[in-house]
Amino acid sequence: MVNKCLSADCGLNEFLQSKKEVETSFDRLASQASKCGFGLKGVCCRLCAQGPCRISDRAPKGICGATADTVVARNFLRSVAGGAACYLHILENAANNLKGIASGKATLPLKGKERLAEVARVFGIVEEDSSRQAVQVAEMILADLYRPRAEKMRLVEAVAYRPRRERWQELNLLPGGAKAEVFDALVKTSTNLSSDPVDMLLHALRLGIVTGIYGLIFTNLLNDIMLGEPELRPAKVGFSVVDPDYINIVVSGHQQSLLSFLQEYLVSDEAFKLAREVGAKGFKIVGCTCVGQDLQLRAAHNEEVFAGHVGNNFTIEALLATGAIDLVVSEFNCTIPGIEPICDQLKIPQICLDDVAKKQNAQYLPFRLDGGLDLARKIAEAALESYRVRRGQVKVEVPDHGYEDVLTGLSEKSLKKFLGGTYQPLIELIAEGQIKGVAAVVGCSNLTVKGHDIFTVELAKELIKRDILVLSAGCTSGGLENCGLASPAAAKLAGEKLQAVCRKLGIPPVLNFGPCLSIGRLEMVAADLAQALRVDLPQLPLVLSAPQWLEEQALADGAFGLALGLPLHLAMPPFITGSPLVTKILTEEMKNLTGGQVIVEGEVIPAAEKLESIIVEKRAAIGLP
Amino acid sequence: MVNKCLSADCGLNEFLQSKKEVETSFDRLASQASKCGFGLKGVCCRLCAQGPCRISDRAPKGICGATADTVVARNFLRSVAGGAACYLHILENAANNLKGIASGKATLPLKGKERLAEVARVFGIVEEDSSRQAVQVAEMILADLYRPRAEKMRLVEAVAYRPRRERWQELNLLPGGAKAEVFDALVKTSTNLSSDPVDMLLHALRLGIVTGIYGLIFTNLLNDIMLGEPELRPAKVGFSVVDPDYINIVVSGHQQSLLSFLQEYLVSDEAFKLAREVGAKGFKIVGCTCVGQDLQLRAAHNEEVFAGHVGNNFTIEALLATGAIDLVVSEFNCTIPGIEPICDQLKIPQICLDDVAKKQNAQYLPFRLDGGLDLARKIAEAALESYRVRRGQVKVEVPDHGYEDVLTGLSEKSLKKFLGGTYQPLIELIAEGQIKGVAAVVGCSNLTVKGHDIFTVELAKELIKRDILVLSAGCTSGGLENCGLASPAAAKLAGEKLQAVCRKLGIPPVLNFGPCLSIGRLEMVAADLAQALRVDLPQLPLVLSAPQWLEEQALADGAFGLALGLPLHLAMPPFITGSPLVTKILTEEMKNLTGGQVIVEGEVIPAAEKLESIIVEKRAAIGLP
Repeated sequence: MVNKCLSADCGLNEFLQSKKEVETSFDRLASQASKCGFGLKGVCCRLCAQGPCRISDRAPKGICGATADTVVARNFLRSVAGGAACYLHILENAANNLKGIASGKATLPLKGKERLAEVARVFGIVEEDSSRQAVQVAEMILADLYRPRAEKMRLVEAVAYRPRRERWQELNLLPGGAKAEVFDALVKTSTNLSSDPVDMLLHALRLGIVTGIYGLIFTNLLNDIMLGEPELRPAKVGFSVVDPDYINIVVSGHQQSLLSFLQEYLVSDEAFKLAREVGAKGFKIVGCTCVGQDLQLRAAHNEEVFAGHVGNNFTIEALLATGAIDLVVSEFNCTIPGIEPICDQLKIPQICLDDVAKKQNAQYLPFRLDGGLDLARKIAEAALESYRVRRGQVKVEVPDHGYEDVLTGLSEKSLKKFLGGTYQPLIELIAEGQIKGVAAVVGCSNLTVKGHDIFTVELAKELIKRDILVLSAGCTSGGLENCGLASPAAAKLAGEKLQAVCRKLGIPPVLNFGPCLSIGRLEMVAADLAQALRVDLPQLPLVLSAPQWLEEQALADGAFGLALGLPLHLAMPPFITGSPLVTKILTEEMKNLTGGQVIVEGEVIPAAEKLESIIVEKRAAIGLP
Repeated sequence: MVNKCLSADCGLNEFLQSKKEVETSFDRLASQASKCGFGLKGVCCRLCAQGPCRISDRAPKGICGATADTVVARNFLRSVAGGAACYLHILENAANNLKGIASGKATLPLKGKERLAEVARVFGIVEEDSSRQAVQVAEMILADLYRPRAEKMRLVEAVAYRPRRERWQELNLLPGGAKAEVFDALVKTSTNLSSDPVDMLLHALRLGIVTGIYGLIFTNLLNDIMLGEPELRPAKVGFSVVDPDYINIVVSGHQQSLLSFLQEYLVSDEAFKLAREVGAKGFKIVGCTCVGQDLQLRAAHNEEVFAGHVGNNFTIEALLATGAIDLVVSEFNCTIPGIEPICDQLKIPQICLDDVAKKQNAQYLPFRLDGGLDLARKIAEAALESYRVRRGQVKVEVPDHGYEDVLTGLSEKSLKKFLGGTYQPLIELIAEGQIKGVAAVVGCSNLTVKGHDIFTVELAKELIKRDILVLSAGCTSGGLENCGLASPAAAKLAGEKLQAVCRKLGIPPVLNFGPCLSIGRLEMVAADLAQALRVDLPQLPLVLSAPQWLEEQALADGAFGLALGLPLHLAMPPFITGSPLVTKILTEEMKNLTGGQVIVEGEVIPAAEKLESIIVEKRAAIGLP
């Protein structure tokens, strides 16, 4: 197995090995194996033309005098800002789409009227007409996004768990306008601006709040309103969801509301007829990365067009290598650049819908709500033409891969409904110790921590073995699903007590909430549990792990976790270890600020043990056995 | 001379050598002499946890598949975005201050009523009352700053030179909301978002327009309204402006309107009395970096309190080493971190007024317009207390250094006024060949291109020798002034023809427009000349050089220059050389887009020759001899 790293997903691994003609990220791993120590430690500064300066014992400061603490904090804050910016961009588009639909700019349904009413109530909207409610919801969010930094955002008050909000206020962490907070972080980290690591880390926490409440929670709520709420159901996952008899469009990104027209159009009579003319059974949308998870989550509302979710970010190259995909539609990250030559090689056109995520050799067709149907037609035509041209020429080989029965559709609402309309049963299971605690295993997938999804999957196994219920969101979900942990049969891998719970309820020991955006749903679950127990979030027997985090967005998610006061495990540290001060604040002193804490542990069993012992401590502290 | 690099300013150099107990940037240069080749080429990517990935022949792509072109373009665009963000932050604060003053939140005068009327006219404001005019001017700018990216900014139409605006429109470069353009550049350059170098370079040009018209031109106009317009006058520069008998407050940054209260208060009877009580003659503001240049530029309006301008970014450490400075007030960059230990060593307190530029060991006293006088009092008290405590303990030694007769107060208006109310005399001098052409030598100062200000000063000498009139703005100004080139006697260094012009008009061959913000004034001069000649900007015998550029802001300035279609010389390239495509676009293909072009030339005489030959070509093309 030269140049192929391992994946937790053996089927994927074997398939990749059979496709030597296609170069993937797995192949490139070896050529990038040697890492720059300065970069890993975060002590390389390239903010000015005198640089790059690299901090070391021999050269403890940059030419300008910046210390390792300053350089690391600047690099870190800028990355968090990048991640927060991504989520806010997604939210802004979602809010504009909701506003546009509700004001009649597009003839799309609002599939989540119940959710709309709930949000309107929480936001204090007195309007009764649902369209006007929706417009107001969108406008209130947009207003907060666009406030200057000197004005605090208003909806934090309505949404944040009260004990947390009070703590944030004490720490001066309540954010001004969301986009302005990001903007000023960019300013702050520019050449010769801030040199204060503490201020920059507090700014990162503020961006965490912005990310969590706005980028995550509000995006989910808006998507629920537009696209329909998640409902519990079994689903198929893996390569086997791809049926070569269809014209297959793989979607990748994070902005599901940009795909509404496409979903509607592809199952129209017109589209069906066109597909039949070229010999296909119809069109299917194949899910990959987070937008695939989101489609899976809402599969109750898109059953006809959605083939299913194939896998996470580092699965898409292999998916294209099957030859069965006729078009890539990407509307955001994490559509890795590695697909670009594969698309050329296998004659797969790419269409990008948002210029922030324009791929070099893709066609750019900007999404506009008022031209949504035309755009959907163009995409379908491109897929049709691609199918017609390439299917004779390109070998199609879809491996038998995946699971038929992953539990999907989990949300803070569907879970509660499943439990009988209250979290009380879950609280009782936790109180009794049938469930020792809860671990959210979230974030990305990467190839470097043990291998693709390996740490994620092994950690989840170790946690459930310890009777810790695992919740997932983000690319971890793809890995956990494709390794069977989100299927009910995985109960057998759990400890005796958790196993009994799973069997009784017919659920797997890993509950998949879908895309990384659903980290926001996990917070809502946690806040509900905390409220029921009358404690603050840091007191819950709840831990976070983003074992195989990858992207700037994951850093922003992590900052949210820290702002919430939760312990956050990472299998590899961010690029901060070159600063003793930043490292100490994030791993120790944060406990005295928000209650949160970063725990870096690169081995699976010690990580599981640490998380378990935190859960045990937290149980004891609130008087649970 | 161990560990001390050379400076074009021998006085500074000698003084530094006498102060071995103080560590400055000049000392740290050697320890950072070894540079990372990947970083210099821009091919190091640290956007994800799998990185840093470094592109080389052996490893031509990152693990994700990103090519050198993608990595370089992402890093470059993000830096330009950082620079643009800085300027827009400055503008936003200036606009808020103008709005606040005009709405009566603070009892500060508007010293530039004539300018206000002009701006109101250009903006199409019909209001006659000057306060209401000012509020509207500020609000129109703020509205453009806060527009979403999908909405084009309105004031570009009112302000941009028409042939340019039309070209920008053809190239789809007209910017949406300024802050949104920056924000989306941050998103675009995040992990696995854009991979398209061409789109990213076009985005950088858009940020250049945002920077130039908003960050530069509008900030100047607002400052003119609040602080009074530049008037031609001779001024003192260099260390000798510092009088140890005063309580000396050095100011550094870019946001002069944050210092208005302080300027007023320090010359009040109350402050004078307090100063006398501790044995000082009074308070003085000593200028450093761009805010010092801006105070010098407007010295007609602050004569009593402003001691004069000492020098640029890399002069401030030496200035503090004189012992004669009692307090540092910093409201933005480029206050380098190197001053922090010197302040501790010499017991100099530091006060920061804007959290984006919070220095690690400084006190943070946030500027608020409605608490401006209190803040000024607190600053004065801190300086007073510092003077009282430290003056007995710290040795004071101010070298005899600088010039008494630099020409200052140049603006697009004061120059025109000086020429008799029209640029015609200048145009005639150019047409006749008495002035061969104009070179704007702008941007920063750094220590690595030949040494502190060396390239800048030598290039200016070579240009004036060739009868090319030099205009300066930014930290180049500090170097050129402190080396005598902005004094009338420097005429003797110019070529015969330019020398005659200078002697006849009594001006130096280098005309200093002040801070980097004044790059915007240079554009206004250029547009006026172009209009008079009925040509577009790229046709003018006008070149730009930012020989010793340093900061992200300089990259944003440079992007403005390229958007204007001007040739832009740099003595060292940005971190782009690892991408053949990006390099080719910036150095060659840009000519076909905007008319602009980056010229990298690290030797002085060849640089001067190249700039001269471009000027000669441009003269010929518009029919000048």
